[in-house]
Formats: sequence, C-alpha cells, structure tokens
Amino acid sequence: MKIAQIAPLVESVPPQGYGGTERVVSYLTEALVDMGHEVTLFASGDSVTAARLVAVAERGLRLDPRHRDPLVWTTLLIDQVFESASRFDILHFHIDYQHFPLARRCRTPSVTTLHGRQDLPDLAALYRHFREQPLVSISDSQREPLPGANWCATIHHGLPADLYRFHPEPADYFAFVGRLSPEKRVDRAIDIATTCGTRLRIGAKVDPADRDYFESVVRPLLSHPLVEYVGEVSEKDKGDFIGGARALLFPIDWPEPFGLVMIEALACGTPVLSYAGGSVPEVLEHGVTGYIVSDRQQAIAAARRIDRIDRRRCRQAFEDRFTARVMAERYLEVYRSLANPS
Amino acid sequence: MKIAQIAPLVESVPPQGYGGTERVVSYLTEALVDMGHEVTLFASGDSVTAARLVAVAERGLRLDPRHRDPLVWTTLLIDQVFESASRFDILHFHIDYQHFPLARRCRTPSVTTLHGRQDLPDLAALYRHFREQPLVSISDSQREPLPGANWCATIHHGLPADLYRFHPEPADYFAFVGRLSPEKRVDRAIDIATTCGTRLRIGAKVDPADRDYFESVVRPLLSHPLVEYVGEVSEKDKGDFIGGARALLFPIDWPEPFGLVMIEALACGTPVLSYAGGSVPEVLEHGVTGYIVSDRQQAIAAARRIDRIDRRRCRQAFEDRFTARVMAERYLEVYRSLANPS
Repeated sequence: MKIAQIAPLVESVPPQGYGGTERVVSYLTEALVDMGHEVTLFASGDSVTAARLVAVAERGLRLDPRHRDPLVWTTLLIDQVFESASRFDILHFHIDYQHFPLARRCRTPSVTTLHGRQDLPDLAALYRHFREQPLVSISDSQREPLPGANWCATIHHGLPADLYRFHPEPADYFAFVGRLSPEKRVDRAIDIATTCGTRLRIGAKVDPADRDYFESVVRPLLSHPLVEYVGEVSEKDKGDFIGGARALLFPIDWPEPFGLVMIEALACGTPVLSYAGGSVPEVLEHGVTGYIVSDRQQAIAAARRIDRIDRRRCRQAFEDRFTARVMAERYLEVYRSLANPS
Repeated sequence: MKIAQIAPLVESVPPQGYGGTERVVSYLTEALVDMGHEVTLFASGDSVTAARLVAVAERGLRLDPRHRDPLVWTTLLIDQVFESASRFDILHFHIDYQHFPLARRCRTPSVTTLHGRQDLPDLAALYRHFREQPLVSISDSQREPLPGANWCATIHHGLPADLYRFHPEPADYFAFVGRLSPEKRVDRAIDIATTCGTRLRIGAKVDPADRDYFESVVRPLLSHPLVEYVGEVSEKDKGDFIGGARALLFPIDWPEPFGLVMIEALACGTPVLSYAGGSVPEVLEHGVTGYIVSDRQQAIAAARRIDRIDRRRCRQAFEDRFTARVMAERYLEVYRSLANPS
C-alpha cells in the first residue's frame, strides 16, 4: 500500500532522547517498509528512516535552540500532508486532532492513533464533534473516557524483535526505568526493593516540570545504600540495564495509556511487577509474565517470589504479541478496511 | 454583504476584562451590522452582538474555570466556519494562522487581520508557505518582519464615535493606562511626571506573568507622593479617567502593533506623550495630537509643554481617522476586492 505516516515534530523519528510516540512511529514505519509497502514519513528533518522522508521542520522542535513554536510547524505539516493526500491509500496520523477539519474534507481515508491519555474534559466535546474520524487506541483502557468515538481497533505497541536480546540469567537487582514524575511512583519502587533487601537501580530522567517533586520527594530517598540512581539510560545500554534485572518495578499510580517499558522488559525476558492501572492488565499476564498488585503488602510479597516467573515465557509473550511486525500487521488490517470499505 | 467574523475564543466579544482583539472585533462587527450588512460572529457563547452569533465554546476560555484548552476549541471553531463557508461572501479571521490550510482549499474568499507582533522567527517560514493568504496589518510598522507576505491593506483600529465623550477641560494630572509589563515602561511615566511635579494616576492591571517585575521594579516607585495607583480601570470609568488627564503618557519600549489606548485618549481629547516605536508615528501627529519623543530629556520637555496641544484637534483626529465606521468602511473595500476580483 501507499502509506503516509504523520509524526509529531517535537522529536525526531526515532527520537534522540525520550519520546515514546516517535519511537513507535519509527518502529511501525520501518516494519511497513520491510514488508514491502511504499511508506512516506512526514517528520522533522533530523529523522532517520528507510521510508521516503518529507522533512517539515529542520529538526525536532524540542531540541531546536531557536525555540520553535509547535503550532506553527504542525500547521505547516498538516498543509503539506493534505497537499499530497491523493498520492496515498491511507494517511496515518500520530498528532492528536489538529488535522480533523481537513481529514473530514479529504477523499483519502485517514486514521489517527491516540498516544496520550484521553481523560481531559475538553476531548469529549472534540471527539463527539468529529465522531466519524477513525481512531486507534493503544490500549482498551485508554478508550474509557471516550466511549462514543469511532474506535476501529486497539493496537498495542510493538518493538523490533531484535532490539533487545533475551537475558536468561539476571544479576541481583530490581530496575526502575522512566521519568521521575509523581505518577510513576519511584518512591514505591524504593520501598519495595529496600523492604525486600534487594538492590534497586534507577535509570530515569527528570523533566523540568518534575524538578520540585524530584528535589523534595525523591532525592532524600536516594541515599539508601541499596539504591543506585544512574540517570537516564541510553537506548544502547537499556537492554543490559533492564535485562540484567530480576524484575522491572512499575508501581504506577495513573491510567498508563500503554507503558512501553513493560514490553521492553518482556523482550529482555525480565518479569514486570506492576500496580494495576490503565493498560497494565492488557499487557501483563499475572503469574506468567509478572505480577499485578494493588497495595504495598501484595507488592512486597510479589517481589519476594518474582524468581518463580519463567523468563523464557516473558520473551515468548513479547515475540507473540509485542513485536513491531505484529503491530504493523494489525495496522495493515485497519488501513485495508478503511481504504476498501466493504 | 454576507460577512463572517471569526474571533478568538480566549475572551468573549466584547471582552469582560482586558482584550484588545476582542474589543476591536466587537466594534467592527457592530459597525458592519449598523451599515446594513448580514454579519455572523463566530465567538464564545457569552459574547454579545447584534450580529447572528455562532457560539463555539460556552464562554471565553480564559475565564472558564474548567481550564479549557484553546487548541481544542479553535479546532472546533475552524471546522464550524468552513462547514458553513459557502453561505458567506467573505470570511474575516482574527485568530492568527491555524485556519490557513482550510482557507486555501475553500472557494469562499477569506482575509486575516493579524493583531499581534510578528517579529518571531517561526512566522516568516509560515507566511512564506501560505504566501497567497490575504492579510491585513493593523499598522504599517507591524508588517516589517514579513515583507513578502500578501498584505492587502493596513487598517488602523477604530472605536465607536460615542464610546468616549470629548473632555475639553482636564484636571491636573497625567494618566498611564494599560498592563504593567516591562515593555510598557510605567517607570518612565513615573519619572516624567514626578520630574515635572505633576500627579500621575496609574490605571493598570498586573498580569500573572508580570508579577515579579511589578514587585521588584514597579512597587517601590508607587510610594512617591505624586503617584496614585488605582488598579484596573473599568470600561465605564475609563473615559473620565483618561479624559480628565492633561496627557496620556505612553512611554513604550517595544514595537507596539497598534496601541488602542492612544486612540482612546484622542477620542477624549487627551493628547498623548509617547516614545517612538511600532505604530506610534502612524497614529500620532507630532505637535498636533501629542508629542513623539526618543529620550528622557525630550520626554520631560514635551510633558512641560503638553498644554500647547489643542484638545479639539485630538478629538477631530479621532473622528476623522479612528472611528469604528472608518475602520468598517476600509474593511469593506478589502472584502469587496477579494469577493469580486477584477
């Protein structure tokens, strides 16, 4: 098929640092190219892809020292996409909703994957107005605030099968990976690990918005002798960091729309100990690929029996359900049903 | 003509507080209705107009306690405008540029008045890309950063002729009106007035963004016995506040796109003492409706001879050049040339 992928411009595709959406757009784009499709990627000019790249801004806006205004560049992006829309069988947007007024006036079918949380009061009115716009959710849980929207599929994220290798023999530590923001609850992870007497290695970054939280809540906890804060882990080192852990601790306290790090852990063969919330029960199988808990007592008990989880089963679950190839095949079904409605 | 006016949704039309753009949209809309045109106003639902109102959000977003997201509501606004575009002879936008991708694909002609400063680096790329979009500047000065854009007119703002009455006999004070932000330089106004031994009455509000500047720079200056800070002046009291002054001090330090308060002063018959910058030399006539200065010495000398300005000439300049009727007639010329290109 002739497929346009339309990425956010805030980060390059793939991103140079953190950027879950841009990583997934990259994995999907490359998988579709591998499968023989003609893919055009609309993204920032520092993106790297085997697809045809239409560069809208010179580089990802967040890292551009000229402090680019996302609204200006998204407006330019949208115009360029619809200027060439007739050349495609399907337009696949990853930029929320700003393109809806054009999409509904365009003959080429389009689909939009929503990557963020949707429980904001304004969005219900928006999706009600644009109720014909086909949407893909990244978890069933993500849909809950918008029951009347035109959902055509839930498609879980996927990673390239060879991005992380299977780590059969972990070292003796738990890992925490992600942003150090309040809803990720690194404080819970520290409590679980130290109560169990197990080392916790924290590979995480602090966003400017979370600086106060970090200084007042997190930093005092980092002095515990079992806690090691290593800063942000690079993409290159992430496999060994997570794969070397006995478990990934994911004690979230918010409706996680997907939680890419859970499938990164499974790809490494590392079980996940997670609090229930958002997508978690869709991604993890309790007792098979990790444990899903709802309070401190359960969490500590689960951490103590984490070695009962078979790491091969974790890797197998990843290969069966969460590869980029699986994700791309699911998206192709959606593209085909929209391009050739029966 | 059948005219659509498309207002920002941040404030109602007219605004309940400060909101220069929404005030001008209101004055223009009502003037066009008075002149017999069929006008539809797209604006927040708490707007008040003699035109047909299409309410997009329930109320101005800035005052909505639900913290509405302007991008959501502007997307809904744009969709509704283009849904009914064929019913109009002209679409007149006051919302910057987010509608350009739809405007260029629509048969109904449109024009966009730019209300803000345009010297931001991203905008040059934007207006180059959308170079066919007809634009109106609110001063010639405002155009300077975008020489290649499709400017079809400069149209100065106007006020209803009877909004402020002529005040022939002022009291013995100078007035300062506006936001207390660094570029408005109330510190200069205080220096000019106190050096001349004249009372300065300050009718101004402090935006949250300017709170630090106010506390550190402005507040210490307010204790001078000749300085009286009265807070924000209501629309109802503004005429007497400005009209009672011997002069309006407008010692700006930025490229003012228009400066509505200057024509409010002229409507009252109050001369304006302004630093040069932005639109000022287009609005004021040096020695006739006020003085335009470029340094402290000139400013103080000008303040001392401000009573040489004939207040009737100020009112006359307002009636000749800055009424809403004059503004509406100029816009109608633009609408007609776009609706019936020769």
